Amino acid sequence: MTSDINTAVSLLKENDNFLILTHVSPDGDTIGGGTALLLALRKSGKRARLVCGDPIPDKYMFAYSLAEDDNFKEDFVVSVDVADVSLLGKEIAAEYGAKVDLSIDHHQNVGRNFAFVTYCDSNAPAVCELMYNIICAMGVEIDKNIASCLYLGLATDTGCFRYSNVRPATHITAARLIEAGADYSKINTLMFETKSLAFFRLQRLCLENMEIYHNGKVCIIAVTRDMLEDSGAQDWEIDPIIPMSRQIEGVKVGVTLKQKPDGSFKASVRTDEDIDAAAICRVFGGGGHLRAAGCSFECSADDAVDSMLKEIEKHLN
Amino acid sequence: MTSDINTAVSLLKENDNFLILTHVSPDGDTIGGGTALLLALRKSGKRARLVCGDPIPDKYMFAYSLAEDDNFKEDFVVSVDVADVSLLGKEIAAEYGAKVDLSIDHHQNVGRNFAFVTYCDSNAPAVCELMYNIICAMGVEIDKNIASCLYLGLATDTGCFRYSNVRPATHITAARLIEAGADYSKINTLMFETKSLAFFRLQRLCLENMEIYHNGKVCIIAVTRDMLEDSGAQDWEIDPIIPMSRQIEGVKVGVTLKQKPDGSFKASVRTDEDIDAAAICRVFGGGGHLRAAGCSFECSADDAVDSMLKEIEKHLN
Repeated sequence: MTSDINTAVSLLKENDNFLILTHVSPDGDTIGGGTALLLALRKSGKRARLVCGDPIPDKYMFAYSLAEDDNFKEDFVVSVDVADVSLLGKEIAAEYGAKVDLSIDHHQNVGRNFAFVTYCDSNAPAVCELMYNIICAMGVEIDKNIASCLYLGLATDTGCFRYSNVRPATHITAARLIEAGADYSKINTLMFETKSLAFFRLQRLCLENMEIYHNGKVCIIAVTRDMLEDSGAQDWEIDPIIPMSRQIEGVKVGVTLKQKPDGSFKASVRTDEDIDAAAICRVFGGGGHLRAAGCSFECSADDAVDSMLKEIEKHLN
Repeated sequence: MTSDINTAVSLLKENDNFLILTHVSPDGDTIGGGTALLLALRKSGKRARLVCGDPIPDKYMFAYSLAEDDNFKEDFVVSVDVADVSLLGKEIAAEYGAKVDLSIDHHQNVGRNFAFVTYCDSNAPAVCELMYNIICAMGVEIDKNIASCLYLGLATDTGCFRYSNVRPATHITAARLIEAGADYSKINTLMFETKSLAFFRLQRLCLENMEIYHNGKVCIIAVTRDMLEDSGAQDWEIDPIIPMSRQIEGVKVGVTLKQKPDGSFKASVRTDEDIDAAAICRVFGGGGHLRAAGCSFECSADDAVDSMLKEIEKHLN
């Protein structure tokens, strides 16, 4: 069942021994939101621990490491920023997929009903914007660490306040978090500025390999394992490349294909305001937001590009 | 003399026939702040016109073109975001440099006393944050066009809310501007996303030519006229390259040298939190902010690099 914020807050206040689940390929919003919730629950005298089905990229460790591990049998399971049960990862989905008591989310209506209770506001650009309101409503004071975790999610899911999903409340929340001591400048530097030399080598390879289709309306960048090896870049360093596919003047749909270690491809689709990225990705079993969505392909890059181009063509006017 | 906001607002309310001066190499803050002031003065039933010593880059024209030209003899001269009289450009400085009645600015204390009255808050990340308060205090309602102009300056001078100069008031102002109808998503796309294919070619050349010094603490990128010609990029398309020099892990000082049509170089210096960029640039007759400053060199790129490296060395602990 879907709930409002009050029900979600009541559940958090009434229960104890929380297991907090984040999504695989963890980003700043799931890690920041999950950790902020954990810290707030502990500040209320409760026990909480955080789980992710994938390793945590270095750049999110400043937040994740605030959630010191604890060992207890959970009584209440909360998922944060998890749009679909499959995004928990195979093992965690098998163990906890049918036992999620509360899902706190901001994605469009995709597979939302896996939890007993879902609090979802798809107008929120980041789950951390909702989490700020939840923690305030829990009566927990936003301290420096909680503020930094929430700022992390707010900044990363909005491209640092650039995307069209930003609303006045997003900026108001950012102001409150900075007032509460969020280490925003260091976080922004870490998330949006600092890049390794290997990253810049990868970017050069991507610039050499990008392909333009449909009279300049579609740009596709395929990032192969070879490119990662040649540049020395880490997997997660592809993330800042993703927006590039949509940045060329005239491009309406940008696709970045990222080859996983098993050879399959994950497609990240970015669109301009006329085209629904989630609709394109749903055809291939994926989903996401209006302007940013994803899906997977168990085939060669060429076949993935062909399939994508055929589907995208239907959406270009 | 320096003044508070009340004196500045009184001067704007008591006078008429305004000439608004912006700085050369115009950016979003001087164009956005100047145009917003012009629109607010006209909404108060006054006459105002805007002047810039350089051509306006295409991407700022959506704001600048709101300031339809008018022809009258000015009675009151206001400069917006102009840190020094020389930044008016030679011709305008010769004609109006000694006649600036009010300077509205946010730069550090460099050549600030050229105007009869100066209202400057160097803690404001953008002059547009001050201008928002000024226009509200003038009793003028912030409409969609004024909001978009102010948002332009706020976003561009903060790297879209990324830099350490952002304060809670910056986000609160952004929230108010979005509420007032600022076309923030289009502005952000235009300022931070949309890039020409020529830009990406230029970026590739810059990635090939960047040089690292002082054990990886200094990065210098020299952008020559040849590189601009080979890539087909416009002069202003160098601007988004500038932060790149500071983005490599471990780099504390990033310098971008941009060759002007006359062969001389403009240096843009970006530093991390330990190093004063303005202090480095002042040695070469320039200035700016703590983390972002600029100066000029009438010599070869190699000589400019040598001079810069010697000065930077003194600032590296």
